[in-house]
Amino acid sequence: MILSSQFPDTSFIEAAFAEAVAAGERGEVPIGAVIVKEGQIIARSGNRTITDHDPSAHAEIAAIRQAGAILQSQRLVDCDLYVTLEPCAMCAAAISFARIRRLHFAASDPKGGGVLHGGKFYEQPTCHWKPQVNHGEGSEASAKLLQDFFRARRG
Amino acid sequence: MILSSQFPDTSFIEAAFAEAVAAGERGEVPIGAVIVKEGQIIARSGNRTITDHDPSAHAEIAAIRQAGAILQSQRLVDCDLYVTLEPCAMCAAAISFARIRRLHFAASDPKGGGVLHGGKFYEQPTCHWKPQVNHGEGSEASAKLLQDFFRARRG
Repeated sequence: MILSSQFPDTSFIEAAFAEAVAAGERGEVPIGAVIVKEGQIIARSGNRTITDHDPSAHAEIAAIRQAGAILQSQRLVDCDLYVTLEPCAMCAAAISFARIRRLHFAASDPKGGGVLHGGKFYEQPTCHWKPQVNHGEGSEASAKLLQDFFRARRG
Repeated sequence: MILSSQFPDTSFIEAAFAEAVAAGERGEVPIGAVIVKEGQIIARSGNRTITDHDPSAHAEIAAIRQAGAILQSQRLVDCDLYVTLEPCAMCAAAISFARIRRLHFAASDPKGGGVLHGGKFYEQPTCHWKPQVNHGEGSEASAKLLQDFFRARRG
């Protein structure tokens, strides 16, 4: 397991990475996310925008929708979200609306990110719920997966 | 028809307003949207976040999903979106990802908007598709619908 040494204590980021790999194998941009409640993964998804004909079906939102269906609520109380790439503005806001407690993302995304980049949603007065944010763990593997994917598409 | 005089030439905003009213009658925040292609409404929705247990199911995204399913594509080429309130950051980004050609919104939203307020997504370097934006038409009726809804909830 190549990931074991890279993410020694982070089985959740490892699970998100597995969703990213599976998305790439379907021809989707390889980004994956899982949602964790009380130490258990309750929802997991890779990007599904092409498969679902849905531009909002990024991994984070697909996982949030799953978790909402499971918990029968739009508020994912005490849930944490792990994702392989910095959420875009759309997903950063959806994570806030879902009341996600903690957000962990691996690689940062200067081109399209909405947490550390662009409109930095959680720093705006229009943001009414800010999750705790951790990032960086698993960054190299997640970034390389995306680089390899886009390099192969260009090639 | 109270709306006829307020929106003399804007049957599309009128249709979005009807979706907002229907959403309010379901107990959802009364915001509505329609998507128009070649002069025809191809998708319409009000907010569905409570009904669907889905924090991403704002009127705009619910309509975008419908249109994507109909057109069998995540790119809604030559489509225009009409919505009763300024899109939030999540919806502004989704509208961009969907490649919506023109966005028309009625009331502006200083508290939660993401087009004229907050991170102003379309003005960010992380935004790679900016729709044409019109706003204001139908603003009073749309804002009043929301005010009455929240006043009744508080009452």
